[in-house]
Amino acid sequence: MQSEFNPPAVLPLTLQEMPPKWAHLTLEVLNFINNQLGLNLQNRGLLLGVSGGVDSVSMLLMFKAVQQKLNLKLEVAHLDHGLRPSSRQEAEWVAALCCRLGLPCHLRRVDLGSGERALEEKGRQARYAFFRETREQSGLDYLALAHNLNDLAEDQLMRLLRGCGWPELGGMPGFDPRRGLLRPLLLQPRRKLEQMLAELGVGHMEDESNQSDKYTRNRVRRQIVPLLEQENQGYLKHAETLWKLAWADQAYWDGYLLSFKPDIRKAAESCGQSSHHVEVAIALDAAAARSEAVSLRLYRQCLLCLAEANGVAPFFTPAVQLFEINRAVKRRKTGQGSGVMCIQFPGGAEAVVAGREIIFRLNQKASS
Amino acid sequence: MQSEFNPPAVLPLTLQEMPPKWAHLTLEVLNFINNQLGLNLQNRGLLLGVSGGVDSVSMLLMFKAVQQKLNLKLEVAHLDHGLRPSSRQEAEWVAALCCRLGLPCHLRRVDLGSGERALEEKGRQARYAFFRETREQSGLDYLALAHNLNDLAEDQLMRLLRGCGWPELGGMPGFDPRRGLLRPLLLQPRRKLEQMLAELGVGHMEDESNQSDKYTRNRVRRQIVPLLEQENQGYLKHAETLWKLAWADQAYWDGYLLSFKPDIRKAAESCGQSSHHVEVAIALDAAAARSEAVSLRLYRQCLLCLAEANGVAPFFTPAVQLFEINRAVKRRKTGQGSGVMCIQFPGGAEAVVAGREIIFRLNQKASS
Repeated sequence: MQSEFNPPAVLPLTLQEMPPKWAHLTLEVLNFINNQLGLNLQNRGLLLGVSGGVDSVSMLLMFKAVQQKLNLKLEVAHLDHGLRPSSRQEAEWVAALCCRLGLPCHLRRVDLGSGERALEEKGRQARYAFFRETREQSGLDYLALAHNLNDLAEDQLMRLLRGCGWPELGGMPGFDPRRGLLRPLLLQPRRKLEQMLAELGVGHMEDESNQSDKYTRNRVRRQIVPLLEQENQGYLKHAETLWKLAWADQAYWDGYLLSFKPDIRKAAESCGQSSHHVEVAIALDAAAARSEAVSLRLYRQCLLCLAEANGVAPFFTPAVQLFEINRAVKRRKTGQGSGVMCIQFPGGAEAVVAGREIIFRLNQKASS
Repeated sequence: MQSEFNPPAVLPLTLQEMPPKWAHLTLEVLNFINNQLGLNLQNRGLLLGVSGGVDSVSMLLMFKAVQQKLNLKLEVAHLDHGLRPSSRQEAEWVAALCCRLGLPCHLRRVDLGSGERALEEKGRQARYAFFRETREQSGLDYLALAHNLNDLAEDQLMRLLRGCGWPELGGMPGFDPRRGLLRPLLLQPRRKLEQMLAELGVGHMEDESNQSDKYTRNRVRRQIVPLLEQENQGYLKHAETLWKLAWADQAYWDGYLLSFKPDIRKAAESCGQSSHHVEVAIALDAAAARSEAVSLRLYRQCLLCLAEANGVAPFFTPAVQLFEINRAVKRRKTGQGSGVMCIQFPGGAEAVVAGREIIFRLNQKASS
């Protein structure tokens, strides 16, 4: 990281102290939280995840500016991944900024060990674990992360690459109630945040690992998103609209499946192993009677339900596997397939079409 | 174009004469037409659009191989765009191939004139007009075009760039009943078709204009699709699944809106101009009472209905404009907006939120 922090004489501590343009942007972000995400932050406690990058520093300044107005309890968390010699200084930089803003700052340093390829994922896991613990210990309501519209566009392409279905293709949620996770800047282009910090004279860090083309995600961010932006200046705006449409559809399907209650029960023993986990089942007829669009969402709902009932993170449900369940169901209904058909999902779940049921369960590897 | 046509001693004229691998691929294509597109080609007449490229030559050989089996009436159409000195030879090449296969071949030469930038679009229009006329005059049931899975992936990205909503984002239809248009190879990767022609010893043309990076579409095809394929070998497979999901969802929404009948009526005079076109209207309450996901599809349905009722091509309906209609409806319902609100769509349609209605109509430019 390179520190570009030349602290200005005055940091804006309220909306009134912000230049109108950026006060307006801050209110736009609050409006997004209120109207699009349906959250009222009044009197709430927020843990802000701050790496020191342009996004999280912007978010920090915005929440600080409305802290009084909304009576927010604000704290900051910064994880020092210890991957660069400069990372300790960076942590101090974030701590100093928090001090200037009068906000408590939680710092933690981790040693991620070696293993080149897995570092990005390890870092992510360590960060989320630290954020979760800190939020719980501090009794704060939400964790706010500073993903922006460029991150969202990148996420949509990553999901396209991974074979996500719809509405998952629309990208990461703005609010994830399961994790108490909030992404207030999700519809703000990075360019605007850079401009804000530049005009306020507030510096930020540049994470050099973001500059590396070692990871698919970075190549998508640094090569493919810019190529698409080059083809159409309105591309980021379209990414925003696609996200909105995906969440409108998600709300629709959630409503549609509200009355749908799969059978949640203790898993049967399998292959001589006793099983402690819970499985989820639906009648074959219930799936086969519906239109394909509905059946696919039904299967996904069962997998979400399976994860929740077993207290594990939601499974990634590629569209192609959901179609495979449906194909197995159709074969069974038309008498083409009589044996047990088993469709594996990444992360340790499986769907078994057997008898008159579809059983969703943790597979042996995951449940042993 | 470069001719690579070194005619083999024997061209396969039936499935039996094809190597098993390619006979199998041909049956897979028929299966797609039958089961995915829901069309029975038995005893039907097909006009095959053949440029001479790898896709259309593959399609030609496949249909020839099943002609007898399905009792197909097959004819070929080739448009010589007259843009290259070699194009006349290319047309002769296609005609010679058709002669070898015993199929009638319709050739037409057009002069597209000048105007660099618009050439691609002009060419497309001339081609489709020629195909339509030829099909009508020959009394054939369908026009078959050889778009393949790579074209589909490219189309999805083009739609992402243009701000398409869902399910439109999934890509071009495999069957378009309005135009009698069929795309039998839509889920076949180009690589497989190239391999087939190579193994059969059948040459094909290379369209040099496809090699140019002058057009967005070509840059998407030549730069962005390959980058995504490089990141994930399964990307084309995912594009296929996304397409299937989109059409499952399309079928769902079509079914959902089946009973929905907007008011189709003679358009009111506007701004002193008498109007000859038909407009489509729905009650504000009907839209406002539904979930956002449904309302957006309702608006799109109205715009499709407007195009059909006026005998014009369907309008492109970017998701952002559909959201704008919804915003206008909400403002009206909450008493925030009292004036007339008008949302313009590309191609000459507009949605007017006025009184207790939403009126979809051709705008003045289009209707005058």
